[in-house]
Order: sequence, then C-alpha cells, then structure tokens
Amino acid sequence: MPLNPDILATDTPAIMQAYRWLDAATLPEDKPFLNVSQAAPALPPPEPLRQHMAELVLSDTSAHLYGPDLGHPPLRAALAANISAHYGGGVAPDQIAITAGCNQAYTAVIATLAQAGDEVIIPTPWYFNHQMWLTMNGIRPVPLPCGASLMPDPDEAAALITERTRAIVLVTPNNPTGQEYPADLIRAFHALAQRHGIALIVDETYRDFHAASGAPHDLFTDPDWAETFIHLYSFSKAYRLTGHRVGAIATSEARLVEVEKYLDSTTICAPQLGQRAALWGLENLGQWVAGERAEILDRRAAMTELFDALPGWHLRGCGAYFAFVDYPFDADGETVAKALLHQQSVLSLPGAMFAPKGDLGAARSLRLAFANIDRTQIGQLHDRFSALSLAP
Amino acid sequence: MPLNPDILATDTPAIMQAYRWLDAATLPEDKPFLNVSQAAPALPPPEPLRQHMAELVLSDTSAHLYGPDLGHPPLRAALAANISAHYGGGVAPDQIAITAGCNQAYTAVIATLAQAGDEVIIPTPWYFNHQMWLTMNGIRPVPLPCGASLMPDPDEAAALITERTRAIVLVTPNNPTGQEYPADLIRAFHALAQRHGIALIVDETYRDFHAASGAPHDLFTDPDWAETFIHLYSFSKAYRLTGHRVGAIATSEARLVEVEKYLDSTTICAPQLGQRAALWGLENLGQWVAGERAEILDRRAAMTELFDALPGWHLRGCGAYFAFVDYPFDADGETVAKALLHQQSVLSLPGAMFAPKGDLGAARSLRLAFANIDRTQIGQLHDRFSALSLAP
Repeated sequence: MPLNPDILATDTPAIMQAYRWLDAATLPEDKPFLNVSQAAPALPPPEPLRQHMAELVLSDTSAHLYGPDLGHPPLRAALAANISAHYGGGVAPDQIAITAGCNQAYTAVIATLAQAGDEVIIPTPWYFNHQMWLTMNGIRPVPLPCGASLMPDPDEAAALITERTRAIVLVTPNNPTGQEYPADLIRAFHALAQRHGIALIVDETYRDFHAASGAPHDLFTDPDWAETFIHLYSFSKAYRLTGHRVGAIATSEARLVEVEKYLDSTTICAPQLGQRAALWGLENLGQWVAGERAEILDRRAAMTELFDALPGWHLRGCGAYFAFVDYPFDADGETVAKALLHQQSVLSLPGAMFAPKGDLGAARSLRLAFANIDRTQIGQLHDRFSALSLAP
Repeated sequence: MPLNPDILATDTPAIMQAYRWLDAATLPEDKPFLNVSQAAPALPPPEPLRQHMAELVLSDTSAHLYGPDLGHPPLRAALAANISAHYGGGVAPDQIAITAGCNQAYTAVIATLAQAGDEVIIPTPWYFNHQMWLTMNGIRPVPLPCGASLMPDPDEAAALITERTRAIVLVTPNNPTGQEYPADLIRAFHALAQRHGIALIVDETYRDFHAASGAPHDLFTDPDWAETFIHLYSFSKAYRLTGHRVGAIATSEARLVEVEKYLDSTTICAPQLGQRAALWGLENLGQWVAGERAEILDRRAAMTELFDALPGWHLRGCGAYFAFVDYPFDADGETVAKALLHQQSVLSLPGAMFAPKGDLGAARSLRLAFANIDRTQIGQLHDRFSALSLAP
C-alpha cells in the first residue's frame, strides 16, 4: 500500500521521542523526576471555570453539537475586542476564526497561502510542528539561522526570498528559545513581507506570559494590518485548556473564506465546550491570568539566577515557558539529554531537535520548559546540572 | 498577499451555502420550518453520559490536558475490542488512532497515502468534504459515477486506475445517498485495491444505523486486513457528540507512525473530554444506541412510504440518516431546493452539490437528511412536496 514520500521524510514528533527515552530509562531512585521537556500546564483549569464547564455540559445543548466552522460568534467577538484593547488596534469579529488549537490555526493559514513546491521562511531554532507540517505537504521550510543571539535578522531573511516564497513565520515569545522579539524587529519583518507581497505569520501562543505588560508590537495599529500580517493565538496555556483544543487566527475576511473551506474539511468546528470555556476565560479570568503570569516571570528570574551560578553553562534565551542553554560538554545534545535523564532524572530536549541537521546554532544546546517546575525545583536543577558528568 | 490556487479552486462548504440561503429567505408563516439539510443530531447526549462528563470536568485533571497523539489508550483498546466483536475480526489497540472527528481521520489517512499530483478515486455522488480535501491539496479526485443504482462498480473503477492512483474511498452506509453497499461489493473493491497495491478506505461513520444488524462486511476477518483496508469511524452520531469532535482510524501500526506525525502537527491530540465520553459510551450505551437505531430505521421506513405515495418522485437511495430522491420537475436542483425553501419551508440540499459539475447522475435530485425529523414531520413532507410548484 502506498506511503506518501513527503510524510516519510517528516521527522517523528520530538515530544513522543523524548517520552520513549523516558519509558526505556531506569531513573536513580534518590532523585525525584523533573520534567522540563514539554510546554504544557500540568494543572487543571481554575475551579470556577471547571464549575462553569460542568454546568454547560449538563444544561447547554449547543455545547455538545456542531457549531459554525469559523467559531462560536460570541467568542470571535470577545477575542476581537480583547486583541483590539491589548494591541491598541482595530480587529473585527469577522476577522477572527476559532480553531482546534493553535497548531491547527497554523496549518489552516498555510493551506490558504502555499501549495507543494512553494517555500516558507522559518527562523531556527524552529517550532518543530511548523517545519513538520510544511515538509509533509511538500512545501520547503527555508531555515533562517538566528545565530548566537537567537534573534532573526530581516536582512538575512530578505536574501532568502525567492519567487516561491509565500510567508515568513515568527513565534514570539519564542518556542523553543524563550526569546521575546522587540517590537521594532517585528515591524522590520512586516515591512519586508509587505515589500515582497508575502505573508508575515506571527504565532503569539505565549503572549499572556510576555515580560512586557503592554502591546508586544504595533502591527494591529495599521488600518490595513490584515493585508500582510496573520496573527495566531492559543487559549490552551492561559486557561489550562490544552486538552480542549482551542486556538485562533486573526486575518482578513477574504482569507477566512478560504480558512472556512479548510476547517470544514478537517474538524468542521473547534470543540464547542472548549470554545465556551475560552469565552468564559476572556470574560472572567483576566486577574487570574495576571497572577499566572507573575508566577511564570518569577520562575524565569529563578532560571536566570540558576545559570548565573552554573560555571560553563550559558543561558542564551529565557522567556514565557522556555529557556535555551548551552552546556559545557563536548558532546551532542542527545547524548547530554540522555545522560541528564539517566544520571539526574531530568527530562529535557536537545536543541538540535529544533533545527535542521547540521545547524550549528543549536548543536550544543538544551531546551528547558520550566513552566511546570517551581522555584524549589529550579533550585534542585543546580545540583543536578553540577553533578552531571559525561564520559570523555 | 498570496492565495493558494488549489484552495481557491475548492468549493465553498455546502452546508454553509445552504444556511446562507436560509438567512436570506422569508419563510411562509403557516408552515413550520423543516430542516433536512444536515446529518447531525439536534439533541444532546443522553443524561447519564452528560452526568459522567460533568463529573470528569470537575474531578479528572487529565480530561483537561494534552494526551497521547494517537488517542486515550483505554479508548483505543475499547474500540479495537468493539470492532473485533462487531465485525468478527482481529483488530489490536495499536491499530487504532483517535482523531478530532472522522473528517480529520480521513485527512490524516490521505496525508499518509498521497501527495500533490496523485489521484484518489471517489464514487459520485460523493461526500463533499472528501473531494474538497483532495482538491485543496492538489490531489486529483477521480469521480466514479454510480449511475441510477447509486452503487459503484468495481470494473468501472478498475478502468480509472493509473500509476498515480493511491486509494479508492467508499462511504457505507453512504453519505449523501443512504445506500448500504453489500458485503460482496465491498469485498470486490478490496480485491481490486489489493491487486493494484493501493488503499481501500471505507468510511463507516453511520455503521451504527445500518439496516443489517450483523457485520456489514468481512474485511476485518482477513489476518492481513491492514495491508489494504483502512477503516474510518465516528463517535459523533452514535452518542450525539458532534461538538466534541471524536473519530477514529483502524489501520496498520506502520501507517499509524505516519498518522502520528500528521496529528501531532495539526491538533496534537483529539479533545480529551470527548474521548472519555466516547469510552463511556462504548462501555455503557450499547442498549441506548440500539434504541436510537430502531428509531432511525422506523423513520427510514416512513421515508419509503412517503415516496411510494408521491407520484413522479423517485426514492433512489435511503439508509442511515439520508435519502436521495429524483423530483418530477424540469429544473436544476438548486432551483428546486430554493423553491422548496421559499414556498414550503423545507431546507434540503441539491444532489448536484455532491457531484462534479456536469455529472448527470445527481442533476435532478435532492439529498434529504431525515434523522432529525420524526414520523409526524415526515408525514408533513408529503403535503409540502405535493404542493411544490415550479414556474415553467
């Protein structure tokens, strides 16, 4: 039976690989397991939201049935208002689509932009699902190496644009590196995309945990922002709804006509209960999310302190849920990550999982997702990292 | 900004089109609205299932968080056992993937089989989302016209196979026609696919409402069924979970390695609460579904009686949720469907929505989804259809 060569050429999901290492490992009993591999909440949504969801399950028939392809209209309106307020711009409800998570938002947008043979520019280290989706669809992911700073350079991106280029994709705050791109850098990429008539996709899944409390960029303030800029968002992290699959797209009404075809053919609509939970979150959990953000920023500070006190280690990026660090060993990332797991009960991901083969910028790095470990556990990382030894 | 020409060439979702007609229509006040356009439950899941879901929302953290890409392991095991029992075959839990609805199951399977430029054979009238997905991905949907019988012919299919053909897709009980394909017809298609080394995808979304109470085919009894046959299923209809998005794939473990890449990049996992609801349904709602099936079969009988008593109308297919009928007017389906809406407050879909342009097999037909109207309402259709008049 046939197998599509493009999907055969696509990498195995990184998180799944890491969990297979874990399954095969015997961990030292005296060291409690620390999981810094995945960027996902480990706690359920706050109690009042769960109460609201339980009431909907019992009494709201519409929460169980199909809804409009482009999303629950009150949620589209509420997110449009939320974005308009946060970014100081003008977003209409008809410019919002709700998706089954932010990965699906990305795939839907790519489907409207590119076909097999086209190209999309992605800074590296990249979010692996972005690259995987392009590869399995025969679209060429064009890596834009970020170098030591972990910041993409618009001039270097300009040199990569060809007649097949359809979009540039930024993720900020960045997964995997934790870097927050400055507003003027995002603006420079927007100008580049506009000049070439291509799309600038900005995935802002982690925007609720940005260190800056104001708008992280000013793209939405352009009256014609939807001509070039496509914004992606997720409700998964802010309200701990990862298992309910709710994300969003902000783009032009014209593009949403095409997005609707895509969504209709794949998931028909985003899960209805999750959409109602996200709406309740937007209406009621602003203060609660502010507390969550303060906690994440405190953990981020603890991560900075940790690496300041670890000779030889170098913290290259740190923000939102993630840190990207260079280690002081002459070994590849998989070797170091496995040694860390087997010797020290710490599950991390090699930086190289987030870059094309041979990319030097991530060759001596680990990606640490620190959102699920508290200050005490971050403190424990000091001893674990210090005690790590690699065979010469 | 670029627009993918393949998605521009893809049809607008049919159901959405029909609802736009409805929004624009002024319906006669003396005739209550009858909606026979969409195959979707209008009632919520049964009360005990809603109670179970509410308890999970309040007390089961895992129902809110990410789960494995390929699905909740107990649900994979329960569905494997259910299929093995119903079809008298051998399906292992590792041969099951859970998806965000059955449309996503189809898209995942196609992603593992075909790339742009390949071909997939689909009997017409077709399920429009199957065709739309191929078109937007640059894969050529090759129509296999079913003719008056609404049954696909394996010999005619054989003549359509080329070196680019990757699969044949059957839907049984069929959406849109209601036809139930006999077991030996399905077996003949299997032999054809096997001979050519291509896949036979069988979408059995409506299998719980099949008129035959036993196994609808014997493909699962082959020890090597997974070499050629790919089975798709949906929990949406049986347990009224459409808004929760839960479907499934049965195929080889090797193909699921590729399916996992696809799911990881699009929705990561199927909605977790819906998966748990489906599991509870498999474990507890067998008797309840049997009652639902009896009700649907009774409505099906009422539809047969209705068209027996309507001169000039011809019921060509009737099963599961659907009937496919020819009308006695010299007008195209859109004209007739709109007249039926405006004069008689009945929303149906033209048969031509389910076929390529110029396909004569559906040119004088309507598709009626009768699952949501009861015997009394089916009786009302008699007067509505009788009273319909079209300008000459």
